[in-house]
Amino acid sequence: MPTSIFSKIIAGQIPCFMVYEDDLVFSFLDINPLSRGHTLVIPKEPAITLDALSDESAAAIGRVLPKISRAVLNATGATAFNLLQNNGTIAHQAVMHVHFHIIPRYPSGLVRKGEQGRLSSGTGLSIDWTPGTLESSLGPELARSIAAAVR
Amino acid sequence: MPTSIFSKIIAGQIPCFMVYEDDLVFSFLDINPLSRGHTLVIPKEPAITLDALSDESAAAIGRVLPKISRAVLNATGATAFNLLQNNGTIAHQAVMHVHFHIIPRYPSGLVRKGEQGRLSSGTGLSIDWTPGTLESSLGPELARSIAAAVR
Repeated sequence: MPTSIFSKIIAGQIPCFMVYEDDLVFSFLDINPLSRGHTLVIPKEPAITLDALSDESAAAIGRVLPKISRAVLNATGATAFNLLQNNGTIAHQAVMHVHFHIIPRYPSGLVRKGEQGRLSSGTGLSIDWTPGTLESSLGPELARSIAAAVR
Repeated sequence: MPTSIFSKIIAGQIPCFMVYEDDLVFSFLDINPLSRGHTLVIPKEPAITLDALSDESAAAIGRVLPKISRAVLNATGATAFNLLQNNGTIAHQAVMHVHFHIIPRYPSGLVRKGEQGRLSSGTGLSIDWTPGTLESSLGPELARSIAAAVR
């Protein structure tokens, strides 16, 4: 069974600023926040990536995300936020235990360069979003292969 | 009841490349993909932001995220991905209906400048991650206020 710093936090061996706990889910403040109120929501199950998480733990996290998000917004006064969950080192995962980031966004410092361009908001998170287009020749085959793999 | 292009996609009034559907959840390829296999997972419930989504729909989405993620990885050969869900215009939300992005990441083109620095991977998504530190004087109060708001 893999262990990470998050397993030790759940076990109470490393202190944290906890905001929520139930049988399957644990939530606490990120100690290296990207903005005020940056909160982590994690399963107690020590899965490394979301694709390896049990349906039961995944459903339990899904169920509490609206509630914890509302609490973060209420406590911080933010009205916008990103939910971000990274899987794999090249996808920016640093701790090898599934974790969802709730990252409040604040209007101060906002620089917006076009609908699809770079957004930064005076927080520590900025996202470059430069999409391509889905070629109509590729779409059907790709959708079929994903749909087949879901079953 | 708010409607968006996603309501019309769910209703079949606008075509899409569907990969999954159940009573509460709908999933299809993003037509402006950030990488090959970029997939959207949405509730049928027309909530605008995650904090406004019902617990039932949120749990239903949570439950199928591992399964759909596995399918995207299997179909594309990617081994890493970001799950991203944006709430509010300043958080990069463009369609006013809750949607989770599953964005496969590929090693080709990876440029990595330090653990906490900028990552890009040859896809259309790059993330600047510049965290601060949680002041020990702020943590307890912030955690208490969020925890109180959860209840």
